[in-house]
Amino acid sequence: MSASPTDRIARLAELAIRFGANVQPGQIVGVTAYAGREEMTRALARSAYAAGARWVDVVTFDDLLKRERLAHADESTLDVVPPWMGARVRWLSDERAARVTMAGPQDPHALDGIDPARAGRDLLPWLEEAGEVVNARTTNWTMIPVPTGPWAEAVYPELDAPDALERLWSAVERMCRLDEPDPVAAWEERFATTTAIAGRLTERRFDAIRLHGPGTDLEIGLLPGSIWRAAQFETVDGLVHRPNLPSEEIFTCPDPARADGHVTMTLPRQLYGAIIDGIRIAFEGGRAVRIDADRGEETLRSVVAKDEGACRLGELALVDGQGRIGAMKTVFLDTLIDENAASHLALGNGLTMALDDETSKERANVSGIHVDLMIGRPELDVDGIRSDGAVVPVLRDGRWQL
Amino acid sequence: MSASPTDRIARLAELAIRFGANVQPGQIVGVTAYAGREEMTRALARSAYAAGARWVDVVTFDDLLKRERLAHADESTLDVVPPWMGARVRWLSDERAARVTMAGPQDPHALDGIDPARAGRDLLPWLEEAGEVVNARTTNWTMIPVPTGPWAEAVYPELDAPDALERLWSAVERMCRLDEPDPVAAWEERFATTTAIAGRLTERRFDAIRLHGPGTDLEIGLLPGSIWRAAQFETVDGLVHRPNLPSEEIFTCPDPARADGHVTMTLPRQLYGAIIDGIRIAFEGGRAVRIDADRGEETLRSVVAKDEGACRLGELALVDGQGRIGAMKTVFLDTLIDENAASHLALGNGLTMALDDETSKERANVSGIHVDLMIGRPELDVDGIRSDGAVVPVLRDGRWQL
Repeated sequence: MSASPTDRIARLAELAIRFGANVQPGQIVGVTAYAGREEMTRALARSAYAAGARWVDVVTFDDLLKRERLAHADESTLDVVPPWMGARVRWLSDERAARVTMAGPQDPHALDGIDPARAGRDLLPWLEEAGEVVNARTTNWTMIPVPTGPWAEAVYPELDAPDALERLWSAVERMCRLDEPDPVAAWEERFATTTAIAGRLTERRFDAIRLHGPGTDLEIGLLPGSIWRAAQFETVDGLVHRPNLPSEEIFTCPDPARADGHVTMTLPRQLYGAIIDGIRIAFEGGRAVRIDADRGEETLRSVVAKDEGACRLGELALVDGQGRIGAMKTVFLDTLIDENAASHLALGNGLTMALDDETSKERANVSGIHVDLMIGRPELDVDGIRSDGAVVPVLRDGRWQL
Repeated sequence: MSASPTDRIARLAELAIRFGANVQPGQIVGVTAYAGREEMTRALARSAYAAGARWVDVVTFDDLLKRERLAHADESTLDVVPPWMGARVRWLSDERAARVTMAGPQDPHALDGIDPARAGRDLLPWLEEAGEVVNARTTNWTMIPVPTGPWAEAVYPELDAPDALERLWSAVERMCRLDEPDPVAAWEERFATTTAIAGRLTERRFDAIRLHGPGTDLEIGLLPGSIWRAAQFETVDGLVHRPNLPSEEIFTCPDPARADGHVTMTLPRQLYGAIIDGIRIAFEGGRAVRIDADRGEETLRSVVAKDEGACRLGELALVDGQGRIGAMKTVFLDTLIDENAASHLALGNGLTMALDDETSKERANVSGIHVDLMIGRPELDVDGIRSDGAVVPVLRDGRWQL
C-alpha cells in the first residue's frame, strides 16, 4: 500500500516545517523552490502558516530556464547575479527567519549538451550570502529532498515513469524516517547517536585524520579548534533545527593547509547541472594539485579554479554503516542524499561552525564554492592521528571504534 | 490547422520581447511569471537572451500558494509584503530594465471559497513600487496574456479541456494579431489609428466627458492637463514600447474631484481572485458614494476602502468598435483583455503619464490601488463637453466622430 501523493507531500512538508526548520510563531519562512514542485511549495506554506508563520517568502528557480540562459546568453553575462537575491537572504537573516530549501535535481538532464565551461560560470541558485548566513547562525533552516518525475527516471532508468516516481518517493520516505509511526522520535534517536559520537571525537582533539582503502590514502590535518558536529544545529537565539533531512553524518572543518595523498570518489554527483563521476584528486600541502574524472572533468576543474580557496578542503564528514541511505545501495544523483550515504569531503568554503576558537576560524578555508565529494565505502578505514603520532581507529567496516 | 503549442508560445514570446517590451542589447529583463506557465517563461528568456539581454530576472507567483496564505495565515499578517520585492522593482528602474508581465488568471477558481475580506487584504503580486516605476517611465515594459488550462475552461465551460485551451490560444493569437503574416506591421497600423484619435481628442481639451446609455449617465471632469494616449509609450530614454498586448484603447487621467451620476459595468472582472459582476456605482463630487454588485460586492467594497483615493477615478479609457476583442463577444475574465473590449474607467491611482502639466499632476488621484471597470457597449454614447458647455459627439455606435 502506498500513500496518496498529496498525503506524502503533506507529511514531508510537516516534518520539514515542524522538526527540520522548527518554525516558530511569528517567523518569516524563506523557501527556495523549483519549477515542477509547486505542490510541495504549497504544502510547506500550509504547514508554515499553520505553525504561525508571518509570511512565507518563496523564490522559485527552474533549471530549464537556466538552460535557456546558458544556451543563449552572451558569455560575458553568465556570472551576473541580481543584487536583490543576496539582499533577500540578508533580510531573512536580519529577520531571524526560518528557511527551507528543496533538494534533489529538478531534472538531471536539464543541462544536457550545454558547454560545461559555461555551466560552471552560473552558480545560481547558490548565493555567497547564503553561506555567510549559515555561518552567522541567524536562521533556523532545513533542506529536504523533493521527488520529481525526471529525477526518479534518472535514478531508476529500468522502471517506467510512474513506478520510478513511486520508488523514489518510497526511498525518500524511508530515508526521512516517514515510514516510522513517529518520525520525529526516530530522528531524535538517530541524532542522539550522531551527537554522542561527535562529542567523543571532539574530545580527542586529533591532529589529523587518515583515510585509507581502495584508491584512497589521504591524511587531512585538523585545526586546534576543529570540533565534530552532527547536523543538529542551534541558532544564536537558541533555536534547535536540523539543516539536512535526511542526515547521517558527523563533520568537522579541517586545516586547509594540510592534506596530502590521494583520494578516489565512490559516488558520482551532479555539479551545476553536469554529472561528475570517477573523480580522483591528488593533494599536496592542502591543495588539490591534480584532478581527473571519468566524466565531467571540465566542470569540476572550472569550479575548482573559481578562486584561491576552491582547491582546498572546507569539510570532512564521516558516515557510519548504520544510516538508512547507504543500505539502499542507490546513487540518488543528489548531494544531500548521497553525501549521507558515505563519508565525504568538500572542496571550498570552510564550515566555521565546526571550529571553536577564533584563531582556527581565521585559518579556515575561504571560497565562494563548497562542493561535497563522496569518498566513503565499507572498506574505507578511518584513523585519528594524535599530535604525538599515535594512531587511533575511528571507523572500521562502517562501525565506530570509539 | 493549428500551430504546435511550442511554436505558438515561441511566437507570442518573440512579439512580447521584440515589439511589446522592445528589449535592447545589454538590458536586464524583469519577468513576472506564474506557476503553470513555465514554458512561456523559458520562451521569453530565450527570446530575450537572443535579443542580447544581460540577465532575465524572473519572479514567479502562484495563486494556489496565495490560497494557502489566505486560508491559513493569521489575519494580522495578510498585508505583509517582503521589502525585497519593491526594492527589486526599483532596481529594475535604476537599471533602465525591460519588463514583461504575464496576464490572464492562472486559475479563475484558485481562491474559490476564500473569505473576500481576507482576499482583499493581500494585493500581491501588485506592488506600489510598480506604479511609481510606470509613472517614472524608466522601463520599457509590456504585458501579454498567457493561456492556461484552468483559465481556458472557465472562459469556455461548454468545451472539454483540450478544446477550451485550443480555443483560448486561437483567441489570444487573433487578438495579438499573431494570425497575420506580419504581426508587427498589423500592430503598427492599429497603433497609428489609436495614436491619431488620441491626438485629436487631446487637441480639443474638453472640460469633461459624458457617458450615457443603458444604465449609465455619468459626467467625468477632466484636468486642464489631461491628454489622451494610445498604449504606445516612450521611456525617458526614448525607447518606444507597447505596455499592453493586445491594446485597443485610448485613455486619459481625469479630475478626481469631478464625477457625477451613475454607471453600470458591462463586463464582469476578476479582482484579487474574486469574480465581480453586475457592478453599479453612483458618483458625487468625484467620490463613489454607493457601490452595488450582483456578485463580489464585499471584495470591491473592501478594495475601495483601502485608502483615501481608492473611491475616486484615476483613468478613463475609450475603445472603438473596430478592435478585435469586442467582436469576439467573449468575457475573457481578465482585465488586460476585457478592458480592451470596451470603454472603461478605473478607480484608484491616476495615470499621470496622461497629464502634461505639473499642476494637473499634483491634482491627479493618489491611491495604492488601480482597478479597471468595463463600461463600454455599442449603445454607450460618449460626448466631449467644452468649457463653454458645448457638447461634441466623440463615440456613437462604436465609431469615432472626430
